[in-house]
Amino acid sequence: MLHAVIMAGGSGTRFWPASRRDRPKQFLTLSGARSLLQQATDRCLPMIPHERLWIVTGARHAVETGRQLPDLSAEHVLIEPCGRNTAPCIGLAALRVQAADPDAILLVTPADHVISPTAAFVAAVERAVATIGDTPEKLCLFGIVPTRPATGYGYIERGAALSNTREGVFSVVRFREKPDFATAQQFLTDGNFLWNSGIFVWRADTILKALALHQPELHQRLQALAPHCGKASWQESLERDFPQMPSISIDYAVLEHSRDVCVIEAPFGWDDVGSWAALTRLHQPDAEGNIVVGKHSGIATKNCTIYGDNDHLITTIGLEGCTVVHTPTATLVAKLDDEAQLKDLLKRLEQQGFEDAL
Amino acid sequence: MLHAVIMAGGSGTRFWPASRRDRPKQFLTLSGARSLLQQATDRCLPMIPHERLWIVTGARHAVETGRQLPDLSAEHVLIEPCGRNTAPCIGLAALRVQAADPDAILLVTPADHVISPTAAFVAAVERAVATIGDTPEKLCLFGIVPTRPATGYGYIERGAALSNTREGVFSVVRFREKPDFATAQQFLTDGNFLWNSGIFVWRADTILKALALHQPELHQRLQALAPHCGKASWQESLERDFPQMPSISIDYAVLEHSRDVCVIEAPFGWDDVGSWAALTRLHQPDAEGNIVVGKHSGIATKNCTIYGDNDHLITTIGLEGCTVVHTPTATLVAKLDDEAQLKDLLKRLEQQGFEDAL
Repeated sequence: MLHAVIMAGGSGTRFWPASRRDRPKQFLTLSGARSLLQQATDRCLPMIPHERLWIVTGARHAVETGRQLPDLSAEHVLIEPCGRNTAPCIGLAALRVQAADPDAILLVTPADHVISPTAAFVAAVERAVATIGDTPEKLCLFGIVPTRPATGYGYIERGAALSNTREGVFSVVRFREKPDFATAQQFLTDGNFLWNSGIFVWRADTILKALALHQPELHQRLQALAPHCGKASWQESLERDFPQMPSISIDYAVLEHSRDVCVIEAPFGWDDVGSWAALTRLHQPDAEGNIVVGKHSGIATKNCTIYGDNDHLITTIGLEGCTVVHTPTATLVAKLDDEAQLKDLLKRLEQQGFEDAL
Repeated sequence: MLHAVIMAGGSGTRFWPASRRDRPKQFLTLSGARSLLQQATDRCLPMIPHERLWIVTGARHAVETGRQLPDLSAEHVLIEPCGRNTAPCIGLAALRVQAADPDAILLVTPADHVISPTAAFVAAVERAVATIGDTPEKLCLFGIVPTRPATGYGYIERGAALSNTREGVFSVVRFREKPDFATAQQFLTDGNFLWNSGIFVWRADTILKALALHQPELHQRLQALAPHCGKASWQESLERDFPQMPSISIDYAVLEHSRDVCVIEAPFGWDDVGSWAALTRLHQPDAEGNIVVGKHSGIATKNCTIYGDNDHLITTIGLEGCTVVHTPTATLVAKLDDEAQLKDLLKRLEQQGFEDAL
């Protein structure tokens, strides 16, 4: 049966002050009326009921996860004692789900991406599931056709079509790290490079076998958890063994080493919503080029991103190219040229004793 | 005896969103630790006890006035049923105070100016009181030595020194309306022009006689109030007769017609705090030219005015020459070239149904 594993870690720095340590990006409503986490589950529900839906998150986000997803059983929220990147996260979920369903196929997806339309996403997942039906050893990964020479993503060089009958499924020639701008431009022109979406479909037993092969230490730690699956001792054993696991991404840990990886060209629109700048891709700007979420009134305001809520009025005069974010405890007014500036600000806040605001 | 009449009307538009209809400028803390209204009373207290201190304000500001001035008796807060400019306001106060003290001398002052040092203010008032001791018919007015060619103030052209023994007291040649910039520059070079501070000292009976002479209709309306001074029927009669009075300033109503006006060159620093721009005169900017009231942290932020409170963190990146004002219900981010822009914004807010925010 198909299960969904939604990875809802996240640190809450890139959308500060809307996102905070205690309220990372997946909890925010950045497009539409539902949070990114809610949209991630909504996207799965046409093919996967709540009984086969799993969230992996941190302890400090468990309460808000429960609030945002009231139909999800508490046992389906897997709580990492600390962040250890995606390989331990996925390993732990695979272990847990396999204990419930030995034949489980996992759709593994981050909680904080924007994807549309849902029908295309569902069709793509079904294509992956069919591929795995034919070839159970395959590790399927969705690749996004690049729309710009982005330097912030990993790229996948695709090879030959895997199947004559199933469109858009390719072998992988190699993984390419975040490229420099010139290389990203080459990739874009070449046409055989796809963005690594971080969305995967594979059998639980397949990914566990791959972890055993490529990351024996990590796999051994996972095995220590196995007897506790679904037991009262689960969280305790997790807190003992999970922090011992190496912090490593599933890409480094497995995908870059395995010959069973295939990439499926995503037929859906995708955005990882990496920074405030992403809002200009997710929203239709008004006549003055402004993106507004919340209550705003402006004079001579152009190309600004205004983000607040309906309880607070943001007003602007003579502002151009600025990001204004209001929350009840902190406000940001910024001309953001690159994301590093926001990181610098947060470092500064920590130094200045404004840690509570992080 | 010397009494103070503090005129605390005010509309709350120029310091929006910190000032509102229900919270005009005099209630704000714009310099120092006390509100402008509190500073206005603090300035009087070295010479005038609470028992001779009177506030004139509107009904919607009575509660906040009482809160900010806990030592003031409620009967000393005179409540105008509506705004009718300074002549009716001063007439009503003169009538009320004279009923309590027929020999009263009034120091009449707006509640929302910044004046310092207090000792110089006290000395100037004492000089005015002495002048009136010699010549009880005099209407004394403080003139401010201009420091810039301001076009927003009325000017007074001073004449000969009135007294050989008392320095800085002059006759008035004429009043000059708000000048254009070239005229203001001439006034500045000429050296005989002073800004009209709107701060006066005169006997209560003198100003009432002057109103009888120059504004007989207004005076007649005031006379209708006379029997109710200090009685339970006071507020009721005020609500009946005050709205009938013409809306006119004391300058137009009396000062520009009377030959008894004299101007005293103010030995104190004065600022009418007419707009957010005034904060740059009242505060010492930091090394980057920023004026900060409240909690702020910024990167690459220059020549900005940041105004908030200690419960909310305002952060800025790459901002120059902007005014950022945060209040719990509304935020303003503005590059203000002139005050009209803020008025335009408030008009817009009214049209857009954001009346509650005004």
